[in-house]
Amino acid sequence: MGLRFDVLTLFPEMIEGYCSLALLGRGVKNGIIEVHTTNPRDFTHDKHRRVDDTPYGGSAGMVMMAPPVFEAYESIEKLPDNEFIMLTPQGEPYSQKISKELAQKKQIILLCGRYEGFDERIRLGLKPREISLGDYVLTGGELGALCIIDSVSRHLHGFLGKDESAVDDSFSEGLKGLLEHPQYTRPREYRGLKVPEVLLNGNHGEIEKYRLSERIKRTKERRGDLWEKIGKNFENI
Amino acid sequence: MGLRFDVLTLFPEMIEGYCSLALLGRGVKNGIIEVHTTNPRDFTHDKHRRVDDTPYGGSAGMVMMAPPVFEAYESIEKLPDNEFIMLTPQGEPYSQKISKELAQKKQIILLCGRYEGFDERIRLGLKPREISLGDYVLTGGELGALCIIDSVSRHLHGFLGKDESAVDDSFSEGLKGLLEHPQYTRPREYRGLKVPEVLLNGNHGEIEKYRLSERIKRTKERRGDLWEKIGKNFENI
Repeated sequence: MGLRFDVLTLFPEMIEGYCSLALLGRGVKNGIIEVHTTNPRDFTHDKHRRVDDTPYGGSAGMVMMAPPVFEAYESIEKLPDNEFIMLTPQGEPYSQKISKELAQKKQIILLCGRYEGFDERIRLGLKPREISLGDYVLTGGELGALCIIDSVSRHLHGFLGKDESAVDDSFSEGLKGLLEHPQYTRPREYRGLKVPEVLLNGNHGEIEKYRLSERIKRTKERRGDLWEKIGKNFENI
Repeated sequence: MGLRFDVLTLFPEMIEGYCSLALLGRGVKNGIIEVHTTNPRDFTHDKHRRVDDTPYGGSAGMVMMAPPVFEAYESIEKLPDNEFIMLTPQGEPYSQKISKELAQKKQIILLCGRYEGFDERIRLGLKPREISLGDYVLTGGELGALCIIDSVSRHLHGFLGKDESAVDDSFSEGLKGLLEHPQYTRPREYRGLKVPEVLLNGNHGEIEKYRLSERIKRTKERRGDLWEKIGKNFENI
């Protein structure tokens, strides 16, 4: 049985649409992943099916109510080795390292917020692991949930086919966090721009040397913050 | 006329689906934003409609070819004040600051990759601004494009309605980057968990004090990296 994702969301179509296409769609079809959605709105008990209300103490915006989220969460069948994640700008920043950890689980439950935030009792009562996609504000947690589903699935055996590969990607183990080197494919020349000679001469040692030096150069130029952490690993190269 | 987004993608349904729902769907309907897609596959000239090929110099995976991307990009009608963005893990990390800058533009063109990366001549020839969603590997640029569309649109006049608000969000100007304070809404007590008294007594000065101290506490506890940058602004509070 594949890794099971359960997404708690007021907009199940956002999750279902993306997960039916391309590699994720194939992963679902091949049984490598399962993606289920649960809508807190189906767990309301008033005729307006309200899931949000004004905050105590005042302020702009609405807050996602605790009861529909508790009940929706409790309705999900839990596998023994599961992780429950809340998408929130207040969480730990998501990273490739976290995606690898999560790929070891049997089930990942993802709670997506809308409005100005969650009633605090969702945190206190359900104790989710809180994850943030990055330091920017989004309208809801759905894009975060999709990023987690997408990036975690890439680690699963059989998810990437022969035309894809996770080995050399930036932030994968490969070269300890260096950014990728430039890539070239056909044609050899396009609009006056040529493929570098070194890539055409078939000398694999030289190709490796060229690529590593490009990766180091690019990481230094673009991501001083990354280079500061990993540069010492490349001092003697 | 609203802000125009043009997305270059091999999977237009991923963009169109998300942008037809919830706040973005309403924003499109109200003319605050426009979202168009252009598929590089429509700019191939062989019967297999290939957009990827093997890399020169060897290695796993496929590379997105330059010609269909150049032609697709050139087919897009350009408004005078546009920005052209490539989604790539090698770009500058996306931030709330960048989203605000982008909200000043008239048109944002977003190039989404698939496969192992772009032919370098796309960078050299079209000179996009390169942006990364975060330090994790995704299957394609589409989720990054959607994050940009979503977060940029929130800054546009009329996009957020009376039930939403961008003022107090984490990472917005409000309190210079502090994480959000806890929020509570009805009911007053749920499963033994009560709303803090301070939020119920109507003393707005005390409420503000409570919220600020919770924000500082939460930022210190969860995001030492943010606190290091902004903590000095709160020394005398």
